[in-house]
Amino acid sequence: MTSSVNRETIATESQPLSKFDLASYLVERQAQVEAALDRSIAVIYPEKIYDAMRYSLMAGGKRLRPILCLATCELMGEAIDLAMPTGCALEMIHTMSLIHDDLPAMDNDDYRRGKLTNHKVYGDDIAILAGDGLLAYAFEFIATQTRNVPADRVVQVIARIGRAVGAAGLVGGQVVDLESEGNPDVTLDTLNFIHRHKTGALLEVCVLSGAILAGASDTDIQRLSIYAQNIGLAFQIIDDVLDITATQEQLGKTAGKDLQAQKATYPSFWGVEESKRQASQLIVAAKAELDPYGDAAHPLRAIADFIIARKH
Amino acid sequence: MTSSVNRETIATESQPLSKFDLASYLVERQAQVEAALDRSIAVIYPEKIYDAMRYSLMAGGKRLRPILCLATCELMGEAIDLAMPTGCALEMIHTMSLIHDDLPAMDNDDYRRGKLTNHKVYGDDIAILAGDGLLAYAFEFIATQTRNVPADRVVQVIARIGRAVGAAGLVGGQVVDLESEGNPDVTLDTLNFIHRHKTGALLEVCVLSGAILAGASDTDIQRLSIYAQNIGLAFQIIDDVLDITATQEQLGKTAGKDLQAQKATYPSFWGVEESKRQASQLIVAAKAELDPYGDAAHPLRAIADFIIARKH
Repeated sequence: MTSSVNRETIATESQPLSKFDLASYLVERQAQVEAALDRSIAVIYPEKIYDAMRYSLMAGGKRLRPILCLATCELMGEAIDLAMPTGCALEMIHTMSLIHDDLPAMDNDDYRRGKLTNHKVYGDDIAILAGDGLLAYAFEFIATQTRNVPADRVVQVIARIGRAVGAAGLVGGQVVDLESEGNPDVTLDTLNFIHRHKTGALLEVCVLSGAILAGASDTDIQRLSIYAQNIGLAFQIIDDVLDITATQEQLGKTAGKDLQAQKATYPSFWGVEESKRQASQLIVAAKAELDPYGDAAHPLRAIADFIIARKH
Repeated sequence: MTSSVNRETIATESQPLSKFDLASYLVERQAQVEAALDRSIAVIYPEKIYDAMRYSLMAGGKRLRPILCLATCELMGEAIDLAMPTGCALEMIHTMSLIHDDLPAMDNDDYRRGKLTNHKVYGDDIAILAGDGLLAYAFEFIATQTRNVPADRVVQVIARIGRAVGAAGLVGGQVVDLESEGNPDVTLDTLNFIHRHKTGALLEVCVLSGAILAGASDTDIQRLSIYAQNIGLAFQIIDDVLDITATQEQLGKTAGKDLQAQKATYPSFWGVEESKRQASQLIVAAKAELDPYGDAAHPLRAIADFIIARKH
């Protein structure tokens, strides 16, 4: 692990961010994550449940969550292998949340990432169980596959991930989101609560878990929390914007769903242009937290920029 | 922790099992577990999800799973406080599995423990999320609340619980159970697979996790595994028998469901009397594994006896 002081020294020798090639970086990391995910679940009896779990887990996507986890592990001076099981687990949990969100009893979506949703292929019962299976396996996977990390850090990561997924995180955000649907009086505070919990909490724990596994200090955790919270909210604002401006083909899922469902969104409060400006400000503030880390933080800076520049 | 040798010495001074008062023991442990569960979840915003989680978690039941976990912790010579967070987590996971099993997309049950099922009170969406919330919280709870246990044992317990819940355990058993419904050609092997996974895996990890937290040896783990597998299967055989012989009032849930659903059950292979005999044999074999532990194993012996004597 590099200490904070050393990282500040590196910062003075920093290269311009323009020299960091994010596209190549993401391609390499995505390939590593895909390979690790592919190895993580074998299909054995009863095949149907493993097929269903793999169907959604291997359905592509940006793999942003594991990549964030690996990036902060590297930022703290450790090899990414150390964080790969946790990165995979975070993608399993994200996948679980999508499978359950898409169910008829929830958002009732037929398409996700350009493919039929899990329950459309396997039925509602198997989709519920595939989600449960992925959630349980995520914790098992961290606990059994993490190597060369003191056990107390593994316990800490599991505690934070559990919290990020449960009622104090993703599940709580989803509940308020469901309650708010079709309600014209949703406040900006409520909208912020929804997104800080529904997407923000998991993104934050992706950023923090890689750092914790690599032995981050309290100061590191504080800086990375702010970075993560800001990119998380910016990510959601841009998601809302894209729901209005992008086509179904670009999104790989039904476009304009928010408008149809009369959901409160950031553009419904601020309009599209102001929403984009707010997202940009959050990204600037996120990157400011990375200053002490110099060149080592180039991936995290570039990911922050990517979040507002993305088209889908 | 008491070593195996010490426990064998105790066995020679053993009191007859008849002097152990299981009823008082269970009443005391149930009260301790109820109090710990009640403290485990506070109702905060968004209240609905915490209410829904508590509704099913606090709906009574025998609390057999946490009690087994506490009992093996004590058997290994440690105070039950050490295993209480894990015991509570195991009850949260059991509750999650009941909430999801009862959903219309699964078994479609309206009553459970004499009360309306979770989705009948809160809706299918909240019931799905309450289950997810309980499952995630279970792991968080073990990781944050376990005291005076080396972190590597906590990681080991989390790994085993994750496995017991996922596709290699409870979820896998549930899938085969769903596939087998209404199929007249279900074999005894398939029926055994279903129950070893759907109920057996979680019961086994209840027994093992208390022992692991208290520092059990490999020999202890082997003996307790056999004990747990046997009582788990006996438990299910008796469940099937009670579905035929008990009334709805005694069960607190719809009776005769298996017959209605044309489910394969042990009595459908063996008849009621032979099923009871098989269950008794499993209990005898389970208790034989406890011989080296002498008096200290009286609770586990009595629980084994209780499993075949129960009327609901």
